[in-house]
Amino acid sequence: MDSSDVPARAIAPFQVMEILSRAKAMERDGRDIVHLEIGEPDFPTPPLVVEAAVSFIRRGEVKYTPASGLPELRDALAEYYRERYGVGVGPERIFVTPGASGGFLLVLGMLLGPGSKVALADPGYPCYPNFVRLFGGEPCPVPVDDATGFHLNAESVRRLWGERMAGTIISSPANPTGATMAMPVMKELVDWVHERGGFVVSDEIYHGLEYGERSHTALEFSQRAFVVNSFSKYFGLTGWRLGWVIVPQDGVELAERLAQNLFISAPAASQIAGLASLREDNLQELERRRMALAARRDFLCERLERLGFVVRVKPQGALYVFADCSQLVPDGVAFARALLREAGVAVTPGTDFGCHETQHYVRFCYTAPILRLAEGMDRIERFLRRSPSRVGLV
Amino acid sequence: MDSSDVPARAIAPFQVMEILSRAKAMERDGRDIVHLEIGEPDFPTPPLVVEAAVSFIRRGEVKYTPASGLPELRDALAEYYRERYGVGVGPERIFVTPGASGGFLLVLGMLLGPGSKVALADPGYPCYPNFVRLFGGEPCPVPVDDATGFHLNAESVRRLWGERMAGTIISSPANPTGATMAMPVMKELVDWVHERGGFVVSDEIYHGLEYGERSHTALEFSQRAFVVNSFSKYFGLTGWRLGWVIVPQDGVELAERLAQNLFISAPAASQIAGLASLREDNLQELERRRMALAARRDFLCERLERLGFVVRVKPQGALYVFADCSQLVPDGVAFARALLREAGVAVTPGTDFGCHETQHYVRFCYTAPILRLAEGMDRIERFLRRSPSRVGLV
Ligand SMILES: Cc1ncc(COP(=O)(O)O)c(C=O)c1O
Ligand SMILES: Cc1ncc(COP(=O)(O)O)c(C=O)c1O
Repeated sequence: MDSSDVPARAIAPFQVMEILSRAKAMERDGRDIVHLEIGEPDFPTPPLVVEAAVSFIRRGEVKYTPASGLPELRDALAEYYRERYGVGVGPERIFVTPGASGGFLLVLGMLLGPGSKVALADPGYPCYPNFVRLFGGEPCPVPVDDATGFHLNAESVRRLWGERMAGTIISSPANPTGATMAMPVMKELVDWVHERGGFVVSDEIYHGLEYGERSHTALEFSQRAFVVNSFSKYFGLTGWRLGWVIVPQDGVELAERLAQNLFISAPAASQIAGLASLREDNLQELERRRMALAARRDFLCERLERLGFVVRVKPQGALYVFADCSQLVPDGVAFARALLREAGVAVTPGTDFGCHETQHYVRFCYTAPILRLAEGMDRIERFLRRSPSRVGLV
Repeated sequence: MDSSDVPARAIAPFQVMEILSRAKAMERDGRDIVHLEIGEPDFPTPPLVVEAAVSFIRRGEVKYTPASGLPELRDALAEYYRERYGVGVGPERIFVTPGASGGFLLVLGMLLGPGSKVALADPGYPCYPNFVRLFGGEPCPVPVDDATGFHLNAESVRRLWGERMAGTIISSPANPTGATMAMPVMKELVDWVHERGGFVVSDEIYHGLEYGERSHTALEFSQRAFVVNSFSKYFGLTGWRLGWVIVPQDGVELAERLAQNLFISAPAASQIAGLASLREDNLQELERRRMALAARRDFLCERLERLGFVVRVKPQGALYVFADCSQLVPDGVAFARALLREAGVAVTPGTDFGCHETQHYVRFCYTAPILRLAEGMDRIERFLRRSPSRVGLV
C-alpha cells in the first residue's frame, strides 16, 4: 500500500514542540526560561480533589468503569448543566472521555466518513483539522480575523457550504485568540448549519475561564449540537486526562458502542477527581483562580501593547493573548526562536494555529503568576531595545 | 451527508453488554451473580503501586506529560525489553498510551488509509475490526480454529493476500481463546508479511499471563513490527488506562506527531503507577498472581470438560477459556442468556468475537477466586441437569 494514502502523514509538526525542546535543553544548561508557550493552568490540583482521588486509589479498586463513565459523574454533570446554564441534559447523553481530546475522537468518529468536509476557523486549535483528517474527512479552513471577532459566523460558513459539507467545529472562548462568540452570532450559525442538515460540534473547554460575560453552551440554542468539554482548563486537571461530550438523544446508542471500542473507559481515579471538582466548595476555589487569571490577562495585554504588539481583539476568555507582532518584527516564527535564544522567553508561533495571517502573530499564555509574566515582559522589552533589527535574520 | 457513509455505524454492539446490564439489574434485585464475563483481573492494585501514585498526586502537579510519555517510564520499558526478551529497543521508539486501546488508535492511525485491508483472526478481539473501520480500512477476517491452534499463519494469510492488503494484527496469547502462537509460526508469518511490504501489529497485552512457555515479542523476529502492550492485564492496572506501543525507528517522528494530536498525553499519575509496577519487588508479586491464575485455569478447564463443554485448545495464556458448548446446547447466545437468568452466571457469547463457528462457543474468564469459579460451575451443573432441553428455546 502506498503510504502517501495514510491521512496521518498530512499532520504537520507543531512548531511549539521545537521551541519547547530547545527551552528544555537551555534549562539543562542552567538557563532560566519564562514559559509562556503551554496552554496549561499552573495551579496545583485542589486539595479536596487530591484527597478524593487518594482515598479512592487506596481502596485498590482502580478498575474499568462503564464506557460512558461512572453514573455518579454523569449525574453530577447533568446537574451542573441545569445549575450553570439552565439546560436540561439527561445523564444518558453525557459520555465521560479521556480529555476533550478523547471527546473529539468520540464525536468525530460518530460524525465523519470518507470525504466529509468540516468548516473550521483559521486560526484555530490545530488538532481540529488533524482529527478531521484522521477519520478520512477534509478540513475546510475559513479565514477569520478582527473583522468577525476571530470567529466563524453564519455568513462565512454559508459562503463555503457546498457538496459533502458535513458540519463545523466552533469554540468560544477560543484558542489561540481567547475571543468569545457573541450569543446571537452563535445562535444564527448553529441554526443555519442545522437547517442545512450539518452537524455542529461546540468545543466548550474554555467555559468557566471567561472574564466578562458568562459563556453560553450551544445546547441553549439546540439540543442537536454536540458539546465537547474537559476538566483540563477551568478545573485545572490536565494530567488527569478527563473530559466529557454531550450528544443528541439519537446519538446515545452509537456513542456508547464507539466509546466501548475506542477507550473501554476513561481513567477511573480521574473520574473520582472530576466528581470531587464539581463540588460547591471547589467551584469557589476555581472562582478565585479565575479572578487571578483575569488580572494576569489585563496585565499581559497592557504590557504587550506598550511594547508595540497589537492585540486586535481583547481576549474575553481562555488563557491566551494572540498578539500581532508585525509592527516589531517581520516573522513570528523567527521572532519566537530569537525570543527564546536571546531573552529566555518561550512563546508559541502563530503559524501553529493556521495559515491566515498567522505569520504575524505569536501566542502568549498567562499560565504563570504575574511576577513571572512581568519578568518575561521585562526580558522582551530589553531584547527589543537591544536588537530589533536582528530579529528578522534568524 | 449520508450518514450510512460513517464507518462507526458499522460497529456492532457487544452482546456481553446486554448480559452485563441484565446482570447488574438482577443484582439490584438482590440476586447473587457469578461474573465470568469481563476480562479484567480481580486483584487489587499492588500496595507499592498505590503508594507511588498517591505520593505523586499529593504533590499536586498532575500535569500533561510529554505526548510520548514520561522519559523515566520509557527508559524503564526499554530496560524491561532488554531483561525480559533480550531485545534492544531505544526508548525513543516507545510511546506511552492511554491503554492498549489508545495504542491501537496510535499505530493504526499511523498505518491505515482509506480502503486499507487488514487480515484478522476470526474469532479474535472484537475491537480490532472496529479500529480498522474507523480509520477507513477494511477488516479481512480469516477463519481460525483448532486446525491452526486458533491462530493465523503464513499460509492462511497468503491465501487471502491481494490488492490493497496493508497488513495484519496478531495476538498471542489471544483473546478469547488463550491460545498461543508457536514461535516458528509467528516468525514465518511476520517474515512473510514483511516481505510483501505489509505491516505486522503484534498485540502483546497478555504477555506475562502465560502458563507454559514464555511468550516471544514480535520484535525478536523483526524490528519492523509494531508492538502494542498495556499495563491492564499482567500488571492489573485496567482502570488506570495505561499502555505502550513500540514503533520502528522510521515511525518515531510520525508517532510523535500523532500522539500529540490524539491524546496530548497519557494520564500522568498512571504513568507513575506504571513505573512503580515495573519494579522488581512488584514483578515478584505479579509472579504469585500468575501462579494463582494458572491454578484457576486448570480448575476451570477440568470442570468445564466434565460438564460436557469441549475445550478445543487448552489455553496457554490470558484469562479465558473459550468453550464449545454445542454438545450441550444449540446456540451460545441463547445459552449465555439462559445461564444468567436461570443460574445467575454471567459469561460472554462467542459471537462477540467473530463469525467463524462462534455461535457454538461461550467465553469464561477466570477473573474470580477458585471458590467463586467453583460456585459458578456448580450452578451450571445444576442448571444443565435441570433444564437442558429449555436452553434452546430462549
Ligand atoms: C481548544 C482546545 N480544545 C481541546 C483541547 C484538548 O484538551 P484536553 O484533551 O486536555 O481536554 C485543548 C487543549 O489545549 C484546546 O485548547
Ligand atoms: C486482546 C486485547 N487487546 C487490547 C485490549 C485493550 O486493553 P486496554 O485498553 O485496557 O489496555 C484488550 C482488553 O480486553 C484485549 O483483550
